[in-house]
Amino acid sequence: MDRLYFEDFSPGEIVEYGDMPVTAEAIVEFARQFDPQPFHLDAEAGRASMMGGLIASGWHTAAMAMRMSCDAFLNRAAAQGSPGIEALDWLKPVRPGDRLRVRRTTLSARASRSRPMVGVVAFLFETLNQNLEIVMTQKGAIFFLRRPAGKAAP
Amino acid sequence: MDRLYFEDFSPGEIVEYGDMPVTAEAIVEFARQFDPQPFHLDAEAGRASMMGGLIASGWHTAAMAMRMSCDAFLNRAAAQGSPGIEALDWLKPVRPGDRLRVRRTTLSARASRSRPMVGVVAFLFETLNQNLEIVMTQKGAIFFLRRPAGKAAP
Repeated sequence: MDRLYFEDFSPGEIVEYGDMPVTAEAIVEFARQFDPQPFHLDAEAGRASMMGGLIASGWHTAAMAMRMSCDAFLNRAAAQGSPGIEALDWLKPVRPGDRLRVRRTTLSARASRSRPMVGVVAFLFETLNQNLEIVMTQKGAIFFLRRPAGKAAP
Repeated sequence: MDRLYFEDFSPGEIVEYGDMPVTAEAIVEFARQFDPQPFHLDAEAGRASMMGGLIASGWHTAAMAMRMSCDAFLNRAAAQGSPGIEALDWLKPVRPGDRLRVRRTTLSARASRSRPMVGVVAFLFETLNQNLEIVMTQKGAIFFLRRPAGKAAP
């Protein structure tokens, strides 16, 4: 597939992608390594907490959403990293058996002030479960190279 | 160790903790699973990018900081999850051979409006490398149970 450059992201565009199954094994594996709180490790401990059962670490949900974005567009784009996330909200628990997808809205696109080769695109990423409930939202920016002269748009 | 409750977090308090070595193997392992962009997977591809070499996924850095917070205080606290992160900034690349630590500043603490058993504590988490450069900052809130009547402070 053709490479995506800064010029290929248009404010107002909305796309959806991904279909990631969430398993208890994956929740526990991530939690053991990065977020070993009881409600991320064990269903019984989860039921004894305000969570009402085993739930995924919020960082695991963010990582799964990142993977879906890589697979859907970042890995065929001239992406050059991100300066950060403006707001990251965990709205609903993510539980074993859920299936996640992402709805991406392009918010704005502007040339970099300091680097003429680069543009900055701001996105709203909403992660949804199989019931179309929004489980997580993020507003973040990603740097992309500008399309080199002579390269056709995809 | 005694359990930490909402009442044990005082605005203005600053603590530092953690000493997490970052290896190329760990960077690549996380990236393969969650963020397979070339500059997170391969040193050569990193050198060809704006990153100038292999760098950790920002989500990996966030996950490592979470692990340090779990080990330092969350896993002996009556923590009940987080509603989200107000601002997450990746300021400097994290590279193989770095050692990370966290400086936590307690910003505010307030009782929950809807749940009398719970309080909300806002923190600034700054992740530092071995040169004491700030590589990532986060402002986020965590829910804690309030200390039950009759339980002594630690």
